[in-house]
Amino acid sequence: MTEHNVRIVLASRPQGWVEPGNFRIERMPIPEPGPGQVLVRNRWLSLDPYMRGWISDAKSYVEPVAIDAVMPGGTVGEVVASTDAQLAVGDLVVGMLGWQRYAVADAGTVRRVDASRVPPQAFLGALGMPGVTAWYGLQRICRPQPGETVVVTAAAGAVGSVVGQLAKAAGCRVVGVAGGAVKCRYAVDELGFDACVDYKAGQLQADLRAALPDGVDCLFENVGGEIFDALLARTRPFARVALCGMIADYNALEPYRLKNLRAALVNRLLLQGFIVSDHMELWPQALRELGALAAAGKLRWRETVAEGLERAPEAFVGMLRGDNLGKQLVRVD
Amino acid sequence: MTEHNVRIVLASRPQGWVEPGNFRIERMPIPEPGPGQVLVRNRWLSLDPYMRGWISDAKSYVEPVAIDAVMPGGTVGEVVASTDAQLAVGDLVVGMLGWQRYAVADAGTVRRVDASRVPPQAFLGALGMPGVTAWYGLQRICRPQPGETVVVTAAAGAVGSVVGQLAKAAGCRVVGVAGGAVKCRYAVDELGFDACVDYKAGQLQADLRAALPDGVDCLFENVGGEIFDALLARTRPFARVALCGMIADYNALEPYRLKNLRAALVNRLLLQGFIVSDHMELWPQALRELGALAAAGKLRWRETVAEGLERAPEAFVGMLRGDNLGKQLVRVD
Repeated sequence: MTEHNVRIVLASRPQGWVEPGNFRIERMPIPEPGPGQVLVRNRWLSLDPYMRGWISDAKSYVEPVAIDAVMPGGTVGEVVASTDAQLAVGDLVVGMLGWQRYAVADAGTVRRVDASRVPPQAFLGALGMPGVTAWYGLQRICRPQPGETVVVTAAAGAVGSVVGQLAKAAGCRVVGVAGGAVKCRYAVDELGFDACVDYKAGQLQADLRAALPDGVDCLFENVGGEIFDALLARTRPFARVALCGMIADYNALEPYRLKNLRAALVNRLLLQGFIVSDHMELWPQALRELGALAAAGKLRWRETVAEGLERAPEAFVGMLRGDNLGKQLVRVD
Repeated sequence: MTEHNVRIVLASRPQGWVEPGNFRIERMPIPEPGPGQVLVRNRWLSLDPYMRGWISDAKSYVEPVAIDAVMPGGTVGEVVASTDAQLAVGDLVVGMLGWQRYAVADAGTVRRVDASRVPPQAFLGALGMPGVTAWYGLQRICRPQPGETVVVTAAAGAVGSVVGQLAKAAGCRVVGVAGGAVKCRYAVDELGFDACVDYKAGQLQADLRAALPDGVDCLFENVGGEIFDALLARTRPFARVALCGMIADYNALEPYRLKNLRAALVNRLLLQGFIVSDHMELWPQALRELGALAAAGKLRWRETVAEGLERAPEAFVGMLRGDNLGKQLVRVD
């Protein structure tokens, strides 16, 4: 049997919660690279919350993924055929090659990486897009000063875990918010957070009050909804809010309605929404700093791995529900 | 009959809408200046929306005005006695001397102004705190570029009218939002706005859509509530929001709950709350630029004047309801 390509396409748009049935698996011949292209055998696929926005019809910063189109996504894989002078068979490349085993790409759209010192999938996590996202929001929007209190939501996730460690390295007090005792223990015991509030423990307001007696100077917001609202009410004067994600809303039919934005006026907040791909010019600096931190043993991460491409849909749904600890990956079989 | 002092104190905290009965008028002897002080006979009192925040118990950026304390407020008046070498009897000074006919102040807390070319009350409006507020939010937060679309709410008010004229001077398309046809005509016909949406006309969404076919690049927000929410939904990528006031919420028992803050993420908005007194170092520059614009005939304003200090409470309530056109003043009798 000749090996074939396997890919996952969007079969239908979700209304509210995504279900695995919104996706469809397809088998087809492996494509051939044209001039200046490479054929890549993907090894790892990244699953990220932003993908939820791409499959809905709601206005977003990109055109929605078309029905029957391959799901987009970050990948790391090996070049198995090349017509480009810069990339050779065997090179490891990071790209946006989607939920599929094989993909053809213009050589300029992938980036060769050196996996001699870190596992290749790290380039999809702390040393990739999520890491740079954490770096940008913290260093360029929050700009924390030593001694300030930094709060990060989805603290045990791929982005949040890096935010917290960067903030600790900057001399801040770091408080995470995460769903469940396991994630909170991980944030405190392994990542070095000063405290972590489990929003599933049923006493969010009281727990935030206890963990943040002096309020919040920097908020790195990944979640939105009720948690964000509660944190807005605890901001200090001149606090900064890096608005990175609102995952609580992504599967809701109606958005959560915020009541505490008046804090932005009273406390003269700076709130900035951002998308890391708007700032490609800063990736080299961010990746240098993240790599140095990792080499010094000050940047740790964990992964949740779905084994096999066909499990990507259920792993994606699980990630949106918060089932994963750390970076959610798919090992492409 | 010896002349006496007249002052208005806070008698009780409003629950919801302020009423004139929340204030009380008092008569008492005129105070004497101590060393380094001046006695000022106030001629004009400024009424501003921020005062609503100062009389409620809700957390804000200042301690609330105490019950039985004189209402604070910006004033312009004449020095009638002085023990300070820099200020002489007859000097015109701007200060925060409150809702009263006479006040004693440390000489360093008032500022001498020259009213030879503008009426003295202009220093409480376009050439004073409201003008600098407009300048700061527009020039330092919105930073509009020629050709961009600037929207300002409460467009016919003391701040909004300056915002619009500064934005026109910066080469922008300017759209106001105001309550009523009279205010909108004023914004367009006298202030030179390109368009104005009357939010009382009963078709806010449709009118905003028509006035903003290409969306909003800069939003100078004075109102909050439903209007702010509707404008958030019309922001363009990388729009800036200067959050100056949320008057729609000030008299509400429960804040309006915003549904469109997700636009901050999707459109990578920068939203910044500000209070102009945090930026005293910029007042000279702002006042220079505003004065030059006024001298060139490119900065117009109107006033709504309540005659007599005892009418300040009802004028204040009227201003919060939006009864005034332009700067709301009290002529101190």
